[in-house]
Amino acid sequence: MDSTMQEFPLTVAAILRYANTVHGDRVVTTATGDGGYRHATYREVARDAARLANGLRKLGITGDQRVATFMWNNQEHLVAYLAVPSMGAVLHTLNIRLFPEQIEFIAYEAEDQVVIADVSLGKLLGPVLRSMETVHTVIAVGDGDLTPFTDSGKTVLRYSDVLAEASDEFDWPDLDETSAAAMCYTSGTTGHPKGVVYSHRSSYLHSMSACTGNGMGLSFSDKALPIVPMFHANAWGLPYAALMAGADLVMPDRFMDAPSLVNLIETQRPTVAGAVPTIWNDVMHHLDSNGGDISSLRLVACGGSAVPVSLMKSFEAQYNVRIRQAWGMTETSPIATLAWPPPGVDEDKHWELRGTQGRPLCGVEARIVDDEGKPLPQDGEAVGELEVRGPWITGSYYRNTDPSKFQNGWLRTGDVGRIDAQGYVTLTDRAKDVIKSGGEWISSVDLENNLIAHPSVLEAAVVGVPDDRWQERPLATVVLIEGGEASAAELREYLSDKVAKWWLPERWTFVAEIPRTSVGKYDKKTIRARYADGGYQVETLG
Amino acid sequence: MDSTMQEFPLTVAAILRYANTVHGDRVVTTATGDGGYRHATYREVARDAARLANGLRKLGITGDQRVATFMWNNQEHLVAYLAVPSMGAVLHTLNIRLFPEQIEFIAYEAEDQVVIADVSLGKLLGPVLRSMETVHTVIAVGDGDLTPFTDSGKTVLRYSDVLAEASDEFDWPDLDETSAAAMCYTSGTTGHPKGVVYSHRSSYLHSMSACTGNGMGLSFSDKALPIVPMFHANAWGLPYAALMAGADLVMPDRFMDAPSLVNLIETQRPTVAGAVPTIWNDVMHHLDSNGGDISSLRLVACGGSAVPVSLMKSFEAQYNVRIRQAWGMTETSPIATLAWPPPGVDEDKHWELRGTQGRPLCGVEARIVDDEGKPLPQDGEAVGELEVRGPWITGSYYRNTDPSKFQNGWLRTGDVGRIDAQGYVTLTDRAKDVIKSGGEWISSVDLENNLIAHPSVLEAAVVGVPDDRWQERPLATVVLIEGGEASAAELREYLSDKVAKWWLPERWTFVAEIPRTSVGKYDKKTIRARYADGGYQVETLG
Repeated sequence: MDSTMQEFPLTVAAILRYANTVHGDRVVTTATGDGGYRHATYREVARDAARLANGLRKLGITGDQRVATFMWNNQEHLVAYLAVPSMGAVLHTLNIRLFPEQIEFIAYEAEDQVVIADVSLGKLLGPVLRSMETVHTVIAVGDGDLTPFTDSGKTVLRYSDVLAEASDEFDWPDLDETSAAAMCYTSGTTGHPKGVVYSHRSSYLHSMSACTGNGMGLSFSDKALPIVPMFHANAWGLPYAALMAGADLVMPDRFMDAPSLVNLIETQRPTVAGAVPTIWNDVMHHLDSNGGDISSLRLVACGGSAVPVSLMKSFEAQYNVRIRQAWGMTETSPIATLAWPPPGVDEDKHWELRGTQGRPLCGVEARIVDDEGKPLPQDGEAVGELEVRGPWITGSYYRNTDPSKFQNGWLRTGDVGRIDAQGYVTLTDRAKDVIKSGGEWISSVDLENNLIAHPSVLEAAVVGVPDDRWQERPLATVVLIEGGEASAAELREYLSDKVAKWWLPERWTFVAEIPRTSVGKYDKKTIRARYADGGYQVETLG
Repeated sequence: MDSTMQEFPLTVAAILRYANTVHGDRVVTTATGDGGYRHATYREVARDAARLANGLRKLGITGDQRVATFMWNNQEHLVAYLAVPSMGAVLHTLNIRLFPEQIEFIAYEAEDQVVIADVSLGKLLGPVLRSMETVHTVIAVGDGDLTPFTDSGKTVLRYSDVLAEASDEFDWPDLDETSAAAMCYTSGTTGHPKGVVYSHRSSYLHSMSACTGNGMGLSFSDKALPIVPMFHANAWGLPYAALMAGADLVMPDRFMDAPSLVNLIETQRPTVAGAVPTIWNDVMHHLDSNGGDISSLRLVACGGSAVPVSLMKSFEAQYNVRIRQAWGMTETSPIATLAWPPPGVDEDKHWELRGTQGRPLCGVEARIVDDEGKPLPQDGEAVGELEVRGPWITGSYYRNTDPSKFQNGWLRTGDVGRIDAQGYVTLTDRAKDVIKSGGEWISSVDLENNLIAHPSVLEAAVVGVPDDRWQERPLATVVLIEGGEASAAELREYLSDKVAKWWLPERWTFVAEIPRTSVGKYDKKTIRARYADGGYQVETLG
């Protein structure tokens, strides 16, 4: 017996069509940096998408060729998000924070043909452009000097000219939902970045999931603010999800400093936002000093690295804004889990669960496995590597790079932790950052979270370093707040009633800055190397 | 370039797996009729589903054979909802309110092998069972006399025995998401009922959509109460959506009278409920007379027939409960549109939009077409037949019955109305119920809604009847409330400032009861026939 349901492909074009016909009046607002904002309705965005698609066809873009972006979060990037996949081409969001040689490598591997680039990023992209062999044309967004682009010898067109000359009707093709829609490279700390190719289906389902009540519950009563970049794991799916929900969008463009963001939130009054903890930390410090009203936010999604409970508590107590921790990676589109406690739990349990990575969204399945890949019980005790699967989870890398990350239909996340009977995932470490002391695991994340809650600590990274007696012991690398004072002994004492006694670090170093990867995460590999080289002044206690 | 995403089929088995591992502690509660309730966790429901699947295999159920249910909304029906599709068989929910010859017909056409039937429905099903040729076994749910079933000569087993003897582990097969999961027959007023066969994919996506913010926003903070029967268009998707969201479920079983429902709401405190307007009308009258607290409901979905704005206003003013009008049909899984106004509209506009059928959920596309099938503008003025398409919309009937209902990939709904620029659909009539007076359309639904707002009117049906001068004119058929008094002239006067003057009915008849179809809708065909036969005492005014 066959089902009698229609064959209706889940595509980005369907999101575009829907946003245009049902939510055409909703608005995308982009910051212009002078405290001002520009606006466009979704109907205008859809019209621009048709124009851009016509312009790209004219430039020879055909089939599933790759069109790259090198852009901030703004209206024009949103237009590209819609136009490129809907015309059948593949959107390649280049991460502007990668090192030049990484950008060169991934543009080459992806065979990018055209780059849509913001003029303000000319100095970053320009020097790399010449060696991006497959790229023949740059579409430059914004006013200003084009020399950094034209110096490369590529054809350079202004976005505004491309659109002005193009028809605002485009005959969008019928596409298979499993065909490629977009790609994004992971930026590991070792080796080449690895390509993830999203399908129309995965983008559609991920967006739908973001709109569910256990996701971000987006609806047309919302206004969404993606601070997390559109070149970094799809801005956590917020752009497509907002179009699908008919929520307004507010885009910060390149004005991501705390004062600009607070002004944006106060004047545009978004209801939902997404950004990494560092951003919220900055926003909070700014609010603490200067005041401000961010109470329009009903929900703040926060991820990218573990979110300190102290940060969430402060936000809620002082600014009445709820931060919901999310976990995911480029390979998971990215939202896989979200931390919200079930109703009816007491305050302690509530905060305990808020501190976890949360439960899998419907569609995502999670499990932990031991070193041999054998599934471990979901009992909140067993610790193993997290594996996930689902319709928006990667099954391989582009060109099958690093096949060891995939096994039996599951993605091996490289994260280590436990899962309780209610599905709450608690990650204690990256597999490669795990500290194994005398055969037992010490969680660097727990130590960091506890340290950061100390009033004098701005940032803290804990890594495992070789130890004669215990094989490995934790080294705490601490940045104090401006004018803050705290000794190693004091911090160790501060930790002593918060973690197991044998976890307490003996080795402490106070630094001005913690080394970070190109996307702003703690670069633990570099910290360990610097320690090994004697590059840190280390105080040893206990 | 191929996408690198996993192939993860969207199946009922995935919902089962997810509910079991992440939301296993959540609870389905079933009314027992004495004011008491019984409970089971989703973990127990999943275990029972494995047992039922093993039991059905033992009875020879294989491949995509059909397993029918003849059941109320309760825990056992939920178990069948999960077990039958997940084992690869097809769940056929028999509508207990169909006429015996209709039940016989559809069981024959669907080739049902086994019927899971509630013992309390023995007298309804028993007499038909013998002529259900393809059925070999009845699994009887509940205590009580089995004679009505055994009299048919079929094998009769007790559900509790089938489960007790079966293993609680089942090796769920891998299924293609486009394969058949369930079927349901539409109950037209003419001709044979027509079969709709849902796929795993359509059920999954419809559930996900019900969980979105613009849908019912279900999350694990909710407790869902499906009053609309599970044999009628999947209880509007609430059972699967609740499992997917990790929301608790509250099931009324057969206790659907207003006092039982109010007791259920007061004691079990559901947050979301779904039922036809008649039910909410009954509940309101009961509350008006007896008091009661239904304020736990954050959202009431209401559909099946047009929801009077007066009913929504009363509910909100007196009981602080928001009714959200939904529109759909068996062919649309069923939820296609939901009525909620965008933020920022004034009170008048708010209520105007609440009175529409609402906007399409993401995934659903709607348009209106003229008599030749040509699309009409979405301008809030043009009137035509509503067509819909999407991943949970039917593309044909089982065995290709009535192909005229489908054209160019769209379902012709048989409903007539308009769509405004924001996508709000306003249905004015069933195509076959349209009143065409002097070449212009009169909306029977508008007249009915206005009449029902009169304090003395309990129910009102308006149909078109032949007229020498205008070809057709409206006949108003009115049921007054107990002790209510209102003359035809008074009601006509009451309508005069609410609808166009030329819409005002000349013909009025006051009756004790309006004829209804087997599923409780006004049977306008019978009203017209009775009028033609002189079966009504008609007063003519104007």
